[in-house]
Amino acid sequence: MITATGVSLEQLNAASAHDFVAALGGVYERSPWVAAAVAGQRPFAMLASLNAAMVAAVRAASPEQRRALIELHPDLAALRIGNLTAESKSEQGGAGLDALSESDYARFQRLRDAYRQKFGMPFIICVRRHTRGSILRQYEQRLQSSVEAEFDAALAEIFRIAALRLSDRVKATDELPVTGCLSTHVLDNYDGCPARGMPLTLSEFSDDGARRMVIETVTNHEGRTDALLIGGRPIPIGHYELRFDVGYYYARRKIPTADPPFLQSVPIEFSVAEPETHYHIPLLVTPWSFSTYRGS
Amino acid sequence: MITATGVSLEQLNAASAHDFVAALGGVYERSPWVAAAVAGQRPFAMLASLNAAMVAAVRAASPEQRRALIELHPDLAALRIGNLTAESKSEQGGAGLDALSESDYARFQRLRDAYRQKFGMPFIICVRRHTRGSILRQYEQRLQSSVEAEFDAALAEIFRIAALRLSDRVKATDELPVTGCLSTHVLDNYDGCPARGMPLTLSEFSDDGARRMVIETVTNHEGRTDALLIGGRPIPIGHYELRFDVGYYYARRKIPTADPPFLQSVPIEFSVAEPETHYHIPLLVTPWSFSTYRGS
Amino acid sequence: MITATGVSLEQLNAASAHDFVAALGGVYERSPWVAAAVAGQRPFAMLASLNAAMVAAVRAASPEQRRALIELHPDLAALRIGNLTAESKSEQGGAGLDALSESDYARFQRLRDAYRQKFGMPFIICVRRHTRGSILRQYEQRLQSSVEAEFDAALAEIFRIAALRLSDRVKATDELPVTGCLSTHVLDNYDGCPARGMPLTLSEFSDDGARRMVIETVTNHEGRTDALLIGGRPIPIGHYELRFDVGYYYARRKIPTADPPFLQSVPIEFSVAEPETHYHIPLLVTPWSFSTYRGS
Amino acid sequence: MITATGVSLEQLNAASAHDFVAALGGVYERSPWVAAAVAGQRPFAMLASLNAAMVAAVRAASPEQRRALIELHPDLAALRIGNLTAESKSEQGGAGLDALSESDYARFQRLRDAYRQKFGMPFIICVRRHTRGSILRQYEQRLQSSVEAEFDAALAEIFRIAALRLSDRVKATDELPVTGCLSTHVLDNYDGCPARGMPLTLSEFSDDGARRMVIETVTNHEGRTDALLIGGRPIPIGHYELRFDVGYYYARRKIPTADPPFLQSVPIEFSVAEPETHYHIPLLVTPWSFSTYRGS
Repeated sequence: MITATGVSLEQLNAASAHDFVAALGGVYERSPWVAAAVAGQRPFAMLASLNAAMVAAVRAASPEQRRALIELHPDLAALRIGNLTAESKSEQGGAGLDALSESDYARFQRLRDAYRQKFGMPFIICVRRHTRGSILRQYEQRLQSSVEAEFDAALAEIFRIAALRLSDRVKATDELPVTGCLSTHVLDNYDGCPARGMPLTLSEFSDDGARRMVIETVTNHEGRTDALLIGGRPIPIGHYELRFDVGYYYARRKIPTADPPFLQSVPIEFSVAEPETHYHIPLLVTPWSFSTYRGS
Repeated sequence: MITATGVSLEQLNAASAHDFVAALGGVYERSPWVAAAVAGQRPFAMLASLNAAMVAAVRAASPEQRRALIELHPDLAALRIGNLTAESKSEQGGAGLDALSESDYARFQRLRDAYRQKFGMPFIICVRRHTRGSILRQYEQRLQSSVEAEFDAALAEIFRIAALRLSDRVKATDELPVTGCLSTHVLDNYDGCPARGMPLTLSEFSDDGARRMVIETVTNHEGRTDALLIGGRPIPIGHYELRFDVGYYYARRKIPTADPPFLQSVPIEFSVAEPETHYHIPLLVTPWSFSTYRGS
Repeated sequence: MITATGVSLEQLNAASAHDFVAALGGVYERSPWVAAAVAGQRPFAMLASLNAAMVAAVRAASPEQRRALIELHPDLAALRIGNLTAESKSEQGGAGLDALSESDYARFQRLRDAYRQKFGMPFIICVRRHTRGSILRQYEQRLQSSVEAEFDAALAEIFRIAALRLSDRVKATDELPVTGCLSTHVLDNYDGCPARGMPLTLSEFSDDGARRMVIETVTNHEGRTDALLIGGRPIPIGHYELRFDVGYYYARRKIPTADPPFLQSVPIEFSVAEPETHYHIPLLVTPWSFSTYRGS
Repeated sequence: MITATGVSLEQLNAASAHDFVAALGGVYERSPWVAAAVAGQRPFAMLASLNAAMVAAVRAASPEQRRALIELHPDLAALRIGNLTAESKSEQGGAGLDALSESDYARFQRLRDAYRQKFGMPFIICVRRHTRGSILRQYEQRLQSSVEAEFDAALAEIFRIAALRLSDRVKATDELPVTGCLSTHVLDNYDGCPARGMPLTLSEFSDDGARRMVIETVTNHEGRTDALLIGGRPIPIGHYELRFDVGYYYARRKIPTADPPFLQSVPIEFSVAEPETHYHIPLLVTPWSFSTYRGS
């Protein structure tokens, strides 16, 4: 019943209990019992109710069951060893965890060993909400937590992972609040109009300062990009650079400026802290000035 | 009579012709005849008149003399060979020409050979007005000139070099218009006051994108820097980055923002085209916005 | 067939010629012959084709017919005399022409007499595109025109009036480009979010500096207004003031500022020159700064 | 010894006790005993020490003496009756208290009666720090105070009045912190340079919304005004408007914009809360945008 394009909430409500569990058994890592526990509560009017019921089922389970659920998650650094579920594999690849350098790999190994020694469980984090840098910072911060707080933190991450997986595979009239988006808008204050044809790039910084290009595009006649810079997913927590080719834009429009132009490639560096919200980063520009702000 | 701290115009006016030429013989490269030609016109009321007289003496000389003056200037790439005057050595070191990579050195050699072949003279440029990148661009542009235009261009550069040398060594009540300055000012629009204690750096980009830090400093209680970022000299034509540690500034002031803060290290990239003017690059900032412009 | 809610293009295409002319006979002032001239060209796929056909019919008519069409328009100042068509009455009331002071009325009378004496026809202007001030300026400018140019100008205004009337009464899948809109958006750069609950007013200035409030409203949770400030019609050419109660906004949010606050009621004055476009006038604000620009 | 141009601290230090008291007897209203009390402490190295000594003498006096000092001050509304000292007359005229309308005069009378009934003394305020509107607000606020608090408030105002009078008439190497200033700076972000020749006005609003022009001027080649807009005195607490003729500026420079221009007369309304500080209100402008902030 699950296909590449997902299943509808309507279909899930109408399915046999067996098919329901087959469809949603992987939402909680290797733990189809969570889906089974809520099958009898159907029909669900909204995806949010289904998600809430599954969260409640986990919370109602015994401490041993919850501990087991945690234990069934792979270590982050397990990637090279190869025993990941398909879901975990795709999620962890997104943050570049499948392409760690030797030194990063060693750093992750050390964190994993320290974490397991202190807490006796694997480190769980919803990878799609993070960049490599923010994972490392989270790892180091959470190593300072108490055992009780960390148990709760692990469950909270599991709920985030599960909500994203539900959102990926079930179509419904409502949407879970698991995605954010990143957009820009360029206004030309020299001519009082949207800046059309402004080339721009979005890059993500890793913690060592290296940048990885996320997207390269150009503004349309509204001064916006045809597609969101990031959309339909959480915006990974991390540090970014938007870079606008202001020099090219004004040269092509034959606006007389200095030689070389005062503004050529204009970078805007900013950080994302809330992956499920809207980050709108406009640029107001003339050949001699620019400004930006967190918009909406 | 020339000392580390220079000579006064008054002293030059009162000196013997011999001492006058001894003091200013190096203003035009290996060409004390220029100083000798104007010694009889003393007294000079202003440094500008002395400078103008020396320029006029060069213009009044025969074409052969002017050609010889040009020929007496070292090639830019001569630096490694070692036959530079003290003046040339210090000037060319400033643009990093004494630390060229092998490939840059080879590029300069090729340009030198092409230039000499076309124009039959060394390539002359007032190095203190340039960064390595802008020298290379000038070199390539001027290779496209006609022989006549390039002869004039070489003389114009010689006049710039001479004016800077005069300005360096002669104290007078007036100043030659051979210096510019670069300044900044940080205003905190969150609290409506100057931003005190904002760390910042100024870096210069070379043409290959590498950056070289020019200065690292912090704003004072007026939101300005105690000293000009660049001052008392031409601002080398080139591409720069001012970078402000906005995240540190607001964290120290305990302003609640996001974690990580939306703005942390804020770069402003700009280019200098007119070395003898004032570039004022302010930053208006809140934890969620910033703007900049070419000020005054 | 014409009702308060208009007629559809489909109905017009299907109607008898008689009904078609009855429905559109008033589009050109007292000149049903224009509608009659295009009835045989039906069906019209789009409203734009119907409008273009009626324009073409006027252009194809004899000079005497065009002159007669012009003559059938009422003088602007005829308002008090009372022989207006219903369409003209509603249009002219919008610009406040039904409430002229004695001195304004006298000024209009003088302009009317001078215009008729020079051009031998009434002064025609598409009133819905204007404020009282811009009508007076147009009147005075067009009095300087040549007879030929003014004949064309009168026809151009008639085409604008007709397109607006068509747009008002005919529903179609396309829209004639006869409307503009005016919007705002308030961003709080102090907290990095949309400014919700910011009271604001839009006023229109008349030429004597008096202001007439157009709308009083408050921003919603997106920092926008629920309805466009002006929409669904041309924005009258003229001078406007947007005024934001920034002091109230920050006081209600308990942001500590000065007493009295540096910014209280913040006015933005701007002019509209192109009634059929979008004017977006955002406000970026903190307790100590604000900026605005023509956005999109 | 006192002349139109004042007396020097040096002269005061060298004078006889009699002359000293004659020179400074009016610093505290009709109370030469304050000057007499500090004559023996001479010499004063700085004006600040002289001022502090006089404040201390008042504080050291008996409650009856202090009460008497307060009583010797005229009521604000006494202006029409005519028994003011020269100092009081000039101070109160500055806030327009010599030109009250009948209704304002009646309002002041009512406040005076209520104040005297509650506190048994005249209402004292340092008029030069206020506009008419802020005096009325102060009057109404202080009517709510306790008797003890109001006694202290009256003395605090007396100390402010005295410091301003000292500052007016005594020349010293130091200055009392009793003055502020108001300045502007216009930057043209269209051309990246200071806006030269921008006409501007500064007006003060009274509490009924009427405005009184303070100064009308034009920016110089640095985009500043030749003189401070307000300087050498406290900036009266109140509400102001700076208004810039942006439309004229760009029209004169032949910058093509809309007709009418989007920005013509640009107002900035702001309030002054701290009369002894620097208010710098810049304008950054293009034909399509502007911004302002409290600068420094």
